[in-house]
Amino acid sequence: MPKIFHFQQDNSDGGRAMIDTLGNKGAHLCEMSNMSIPVPPGFVVPVDYCLDFYQNNKTIVDSVKNDIRLAIKKLENTTGKQFGGVENPLLVSVRSGSRFSMPGMMDTVLNVGLTKENMASVARSVTHQNNNASIAEWFALDLYRRFFEMYSSVVLGISSYLFEEIVASVRTLHNINHSQDLSIPHLEQIIDLYSGLLKANSVTIPSDPYEQLFATLEGVFLSWTNRRAQIYREIHNIPQNYGTAVNIQSMVFGNSGTNSATGVVFSRNPMTGDKHPFGEYLINAQGEDVVSGVKTPHHIWLNRDKTLDMSVKFGECTNQLMDILRRLEVHYKSVQDVEFTIENGKLWILQTRSAKKSAMAMVKIACDMFTEGLLTKQEAINSVDATMIQALLHPSIVSSETYKKIATGIPVSPGVAIGAVVFSAERAESMFKRGTSVILVREETSPEDISGMHAAVGILTAKGGATSHAAVVARGMGKSCVSGCDLLMIDVVNKQMSVGEEIIREGDVISIDGNTGDVILGSVDLSMPEFTSELKTMIQWCLEEKKIAVRANAETAKDASVALDFGANGIGLCRTEHMFFNQNRIHTFRRVILHPDGAESKDLLALLEREQYDDFVSLFQIAQSLPINIRLLDPPLHEFLPSDNDVEFFANFDQNLANDIKYRLKQLKETNPMLGHRGIRLGVTWPAIYEMQIRAIFQAYLYTIKSGINPNLEIMLPLVNDEKELLFFKDVIESIKIKFEEENSLKIQYKLGIMIETPRACILADKLSPHVDYFSFGTNDLTQAVWALSRDDAVKFWPSYQMKKIINFDPFVNIDVTGVGYMMSLAISKGLQANPKLIVGVCGEHGGDPKSIVFFKSIGVHYVSCSPYRIPASIIISGQGVAPKRL
Amino acid sequence: MPKIFHFQQDNSDGGRAMIDTLGNKGAHLCEMSNMSIPVPPGFVVPVDYCLDFYQNNKTIVDSVKNDIRLAIKKLENTTGKQFGGVENPLLVSVRSGSRFSMPGMMDTVLNVGLTKENMASVARSVTHQNNNASIAEWFALDLYRRFFEMYSSVVLGISSYLFEEIVASVRTLHNINHSQDLSIPHLEQIIDLYSGLLKANSVTIPSDPYEQLFATLEGVFLSWTNRRAQIYREIHNIPQNYGTAVNIQSMVFGNSGTNSATGVVFSRNPMTGDKHPFGEYLINAQGEDVVSGVKTPHHIWLNRDKTLDMSVKFGECTNQLMDILRRLEVHYKSVQDVEFTIENGKLWILQTRSAKKSAMAMVKIACDMFTEGLLTKQEAINSVDATMIQALLHPSIVSSETYKKIATGIPVSPGVAIGAVVFSAERAESMFKRGTSVILVREETSPEDISGMHAAVGILTAKGGATSHAAVVARGMGKSCVSGCDLLMIDVVNKQMSVGEEIIREGDVISIDGNTGDVILGSVDLSMPEFTSELKTMIQWCLEEKKIAVRANAETAKDASVALDFGANGIGLCRTEHMFFNQNRIHTFRRVILHPDGAESKDLLALLEREQYDDFVSLFQIAQSLPINIRLLDPPLHEFLPSDNDVEFFANFDQNLANDIKYRLKQLKETNPMLGHRGIRLGVTWPAIYEMQIRAIFQAYLYTIKSGINPNLEIMLPLVNDEKELLFFKDVIESIKIKFEEENSLKIQYKLGIMIETPRACILADKLSPHVDYFSFGTNDLTQAVWALSRDDAVKFWPSYQMKKIINFDPFVNIDVTGVGYMMSLAISKGLQANPKLIVGVCGEHGGDPKSIVFFKSIGVHYVSCSPYRIPASIIISGQGVAPKRL
Repeated sequence: MPKIFHFQQDNSDGGRAMIDTLGNKGAHLCEMSNMSIPVPPGFVVPVDYCLDFYQNNKTIVDSVKNDIRLAIKKLENTTGKQFGGVENPLLVSVRSGSRFSMPGMMDTVLNVGLTKENMASVARSVTHQNNNASIAEWFALDLYRRFFEMYSSVVLGISSYLFEEIVASVRTLHNINHSQDLSIPHLEQIIDLYSGLLKANSVTIPSDPYEQLFATLEGVFLSWTNRRAQIYREIHNIPQNYGTAVNIQSMVFGNSGTNSATGVVFSRNPMTGDKHPFGEYLINAQGEDVVSGVKTPHHIWLNRDKTLDMSVKFGECTNQLMDILRRLEVHYKSVQDVEFTIENGKLWILQTRSAKKSAMAMVKIACDMFTEGLLTKQEAINSVDATMIQALLHPSIVSSETYKKIATGIPVSPGVAIGAVVFSAERAESMFKRGTSVILVREETSPEDISGMHAAVGILTAKGGATSHAAVVARGMGKSCVSGCDLLMIDVVNKQMSVGEEIIREGDVISIDGNTGDVILGSVDLSMPEFTSELKTMIQWCLEEKKIAVRANAETAKDASVALDFGANGIGLCRTEHMFFNQNRIHTFRRVILHPDGAESKDLLALLEREQYDDFVSLFQIAQSLPINIRLLDPPLHEFLPSDNDVEFFANFDQNLANDIKYRLKQLKETNPMLGHRGIRLGVTWPAIYEMQIRAIFQAYLYTIKSGINPNLEIMLPLVNDEKELLFFKDVIESIKIKFEEENSLKIQYKLGIMIETPRACILADKLSPHVDYFSFGTNDLTQAVWALSRDDAVKFWPSYQMKKIINFDPFVNIDVTGVGYMMSLAISKGLQANPKLIVGVCGEHGGDPKSIVFFKSIGVHYVSCSPYRIPASIIISGQGVAPKRL
Repeated sequence: MPKIFHFQQDNSDGGRAMIDTLGNKGAHLCEMSNMSIPVPPGFVVPVDYCLDFYQNNKTIVDSVKNDIRLAIKKLENTTGKQFGGVENPLLVSVRSGSRFSMPGMMDTVLNVGLTKENMASVARSVTHQNNNASIAEWFALDLYRRFFEMYSSVVLGISSYLFEEIVASVRTLHNINHSQDLSIPHLEQIIDLYSGLLKANSVTIPSDPYEQLFATLEGVFLSWTNRRAQIYREIHNIPQNYGTAVNIQSMVFGNSGTNSATGVVFSRNPMTGDKHPFGEYLINAQGEDVVSGVKTPHHIWLNRDKTLDMSVKFGECTNQLMDILRRLEVHYKSVQDVEFTIENGKLWILQTRSAKKSAMAMVKIACDMFTEGLLTKQEAINSVDATMIQALLHPSIVSSETYKKIATGIPVSPGVAIGAVVFSAERAESMFKRGTSVILVREETSPEDISGMHAAVGILTAKGGATSHAAVVARGMGKSCVSGCDLLMIDVVNKQMSVGEEIIREGDVISIDGNTGDVILGSVDLSMPEFTSELKTMIQWCLEEKKIAVRANAETAKDASVALDFGANGIGLCRTEHMFFNQNRIHTFRRVILHPDGAESKDLLALLEREQYDDFVSLFQIAQSLPINIRLLDPPLHEFLPSDNDVEFFANFDQNLANDIKYRLKQLKETNPMLGHRGIRLGVTWPAIYEMQIRAIFQAYLYTIKSGINPNLEIMLPLVNDEKELLFFKDVIESIKIKFEEENSLKIQYKLGIMIETPRACILADKLSPHVDYFSFGTNDLTQAVWALSRDDAVKFWPSYQMKKIINFDPFVNIDVTGVGYMMSLAISKGLQANPKLIVGVCGEHGGDPKSIVFFKSIGVHYVSCSPYRIPASIIISGQGVAPKRL
């Protein structure tokens, strides 16, 4: 049997620990009561009653009514008033309050217990206007009108729109601009029309206060399952079966005269993090008046006219409020967002909750609270929402209301970019060289577009999702990208695109917002946030307290430097194939793959070897003694291949050879490239390429070591599926190593690792781990295999899954704990069992996703690796929580 | 410490159970000795000695020499002779013998202990020719020459080719045709030349018999690791570290006069299975003479000239041999392949082993042995090698030596086909209609070729492997298919193909052999084996004794009938998409997918619904009360899509619509179709198609039930990955069912199942199984996902893996027990845990692979389903072994 929880200043049946039972609002009302904070007395009808209500065919059974009656009796005793009575009437507010904040989604009814019979005495007692009958009468009518509207809409189901219509018609009739200018006769007329409306709908507002209360309670319970609440819960992943508590509380009135007020105040500034309380208040008003904008509120203490400051108007109450804010902040160890009301000079607190803060404020407050001794360092770190950190690294649009938005795509890489539209990588480069900022617009991008993407400030594609090529590369480069903007009709030949009637030609300026997905015609104004000293401090703390290391995915000296400056603990993934993607090298590499004459390949490979050597030397010099994990050639061949009609490429060969190459091109085409000739399979068929890479690595290593730096070298094999496959190349690497060691009379130290990116590698982890120093999960590919789901193709049908609510997350963004996570746990446990010294990392895109990192910590992953611009947020996550249990 | 195992008639230290220790030959020599069979006395040097030999740097240490000396002493006592002695010399044979038969791979030396000093007395004692010195002298020289050759090649490493050269030169010199015509001086000359050869190589044959023996033992041990033996073991998956035993046995001589003979005899005819012993013998000869073809052997009892029968020549010995054969067969419960020698009227048995039989003989013998009471029914079933059964269902080429073989591809579907070459499906159909047998030759086949494949007698492709489209479909149709014949240059436009210089034009006749991969110019002669009454009996027995049920993959009435006639226990997989592949329907279906106007789809779907309804009615009528598992639409869209320039298809639409459709075609193209928009994902995006199929199924069901047949209906959803995905369609099916039930006042009974073909479905099996009646593993797709390996693309790099010995099996042919098998076990155990009534089947191609079926039985799979023509072999497997433990 559930029970009612009472609260009044100094005393309550509940507390903050009971949020699941009492809801957020109710639990904190109880908590504040226990803290001797002046809360209007009342009681919480806990969540169980709501669940019982739904169990009992949505009826309030007699035993519940009895409980409520007893609770009201107790409240009558506390307040010395009589519920719905005529002489000394007690009115109550009936507010919903679930365990998760669902702002505005459910219903509230105020002034329950008000009747035609007692409204006059209510007005008199509240306004203390025994002497001015007309003021009290106006107040009484206005109160009754408000109650009428709320009750009718929440309990009787009459659309509130109809009441607004009535008020509007009366105002028009009498030529009145504002509702507060309505006279007593007008209000009487309105109430008459309201009554008529109810009559026409065959419903009435009961005059018995308990009937009102039970009907209201039912209405509030039912509001848990109204449509907008259900949708809200779906969007925010809140279970539909939690139910809501209901808070029944004696009314206080901020609108009872000039010695009354109502307001909202934050214990610190939620936008800037400034240490002073920040808020607004309205004299002689109710909360809803603030919202409706009828009156302009004053700041608590920031008014230009200092006489409007609350401390001037309500000195004693202000001191009391400031004291309460301080106490609440210390008590909750977080900035509080507090609703208060002053009724005739007495302060009442109606609600407290943790404030929503800007990213900048969040970090500053965490640092300040540590300095103040309010939080430990770990608590300060844990108080930061890492998902918001990303926003601190990119400029944002000042206000987009005045801009012409032409389309919205999927925001896949944050930041705003403004530039001239171009439709090819070549054009992007040539315009970039002439100093023009460009936005590269493509149906979808391919590796051949890399140089164009480098040249562009932002990328916009018609196809693809959050893990498309464009998205992955753009995030890696820290560039704004909007993808999957399927309204775009791109006409590359005529160098233009259209969205509906709008035609955008090459050179036209657009803006794209990688935070929202908006595509805007013309240029927008940007605000550039600072990388504040507090954020730097916070990152430093997290590096000290980290439970999982954070490395960077980087191949270029620039990316590596950015990442290490951000605090990355080394390079967790150097994708050597990216080094082949620039214009010259891809041409060379294609010749290696495509040229039917193997003899020529040796020279070509020597060329690539020299270039890779240079790359590695510069990476070793940047990384110094930090680890650097070099992955041998990985991607499916098609990513390197030219198209059949790539005129520029084939111009290099005579007709016969060109035909041979075209034939070979056809042979190399794959049906399912992700499941095809890639990773170590390329190594097996063409070991010369892997051998070239290994030589380049060791030569760079030796050069670096001779220059006085000891590289922390790791070499990784991709797509390994079998012990023999691994041993085949382990032998190759070892024999090349020995040869170099002998030639140079120097020892080469390196760690050997494998990508774990197929289910089979997870299953065989205990066979593989004894031969290597580390595993690195390729969570993108592992997700593809575990789901049999191509991230390139998923965009075509995934929206249907999400619209039909079959699957409500994107496994390429947030790790699929149930499926992919199971395989990862299996691999880690088998891997460590056979090799307790095994190090485990994650280098897929999930390595930069806060939710996923939390999971990785929980299964004992030692480090994650992510794009440079995701490093700061990942470092924050790395510092949070308690130390993970390693398996 | 290992020990030597002695044997002599009536008594031995070993037996058949000790094959691992004594090798196959040695164990059976011991066993026969225990059975009082006349085996020349000797001893086995067990495998451990060989392993120690390799441990001790390939030397025979003193303690081993001591063991051998003691063993020889004992053999001297047994035989009453002296090893290498001059007066009464004991000679021994030294034969290898591992636990697996490796015919001819390792070495043997006969006559060890022979010296120049004792060869005369050996000859005398053996030939009993004390009176005819010249006969004995010739024999002695011939014996010595043979020993010289064997010892020199095995122990001294002189190429036996050099000895042959010497013999040839002496024969040429003296104009002698056959070796047996060499005179005593010739033999002396040869031995002189042999001695010169050894001298030139600075080696000698020791005159000390023990030195000979130890050196020979070393040579035989070393032959375990000779190159051809290593390769043989690789091919046959025999571990390289097993080692060989060595059998040292006193010599007997079948070449010691006309009262001597040697021969090989089978206890029954290994080709026909005929119940009588079958074999050949040679009078006055040694085993090697039979092999070298110097003399023509006689049949044991099948000679036209009855005086040549062995019973006439060697009456007593023949009776004794027949008796021994009978005893061995009863003892071993299998047909024996026996080597024997008669020395001066005394029968000696040198070896027995299980005979290799033809498929037909194997089945007949199993049935006969059951009738004779020699085998239980289960033993008879277990004695059949199911992999050989396939050969009984297809004709074979009588002899291909005289044919012109132009190329060899991968044999992917057995049987021989002869027909005129055509290069398009349309042409195949039109020529078929005119009564011409055709072979469809394609670069690779696609679903559009299905009708042409139906019309053809065989399929030949330049690309693809054992699981290519062509292979899978051809096996399904039971048609011969050779694929991956990459020497073919196909010129569709000019309707011809070339192989090197050879040009084959449309209409030219070729033959393809799906058993060997041979492509032959012109027509070949075929022999059509019978589906014998014994095979029918065997299948019946297996159906009675089955440990796992066998169903068929079938969609057409014809396939279903064939399969059920073969004994299939229902339809395990009806791929509804195959029903769309005929010329008319694929056109309709493409319009459903491609037509931008959704309104038209309704009519098109109604058309398909009607056709599917007809299909299902006919399948229900054929299957009667047997289960029939209908899988809703599964394959990736690209399998249905026309090519951009499919003139015939686009001719149906006006230009604008054609352009729209081409645009949509482009949109539907997928990067990785196997991981893309397929299976239940098509259901989610376009539920109208699944709903149409469900309606067609239920309507057919109702029609059938009204006609008096109760279909055993199963409906299966492909590619399910998640509980909600499953429940989404379970609801759809249920609501359609209820509607039909109400309209018809009849109950519909069906089982609901899902394909388990993604790793995620395996992991979530406990979440899925409570909602379904059965799982069916799609092992092809599961293998693809577990390995991240596309079967279409694997052909390009898999050969490298096999050549480099990294992976020595094809996971698309034999189930990958370690990886894929792990996921299957996981799914079965989780699935049954949450739903103990769950039925588990396998419907991938592995369902027809004997090795895989054995594994499926072991993990508790209830049934497999395979192509109709693989049913008989699968049924045989299903009957074998002991009942599986269900998890």
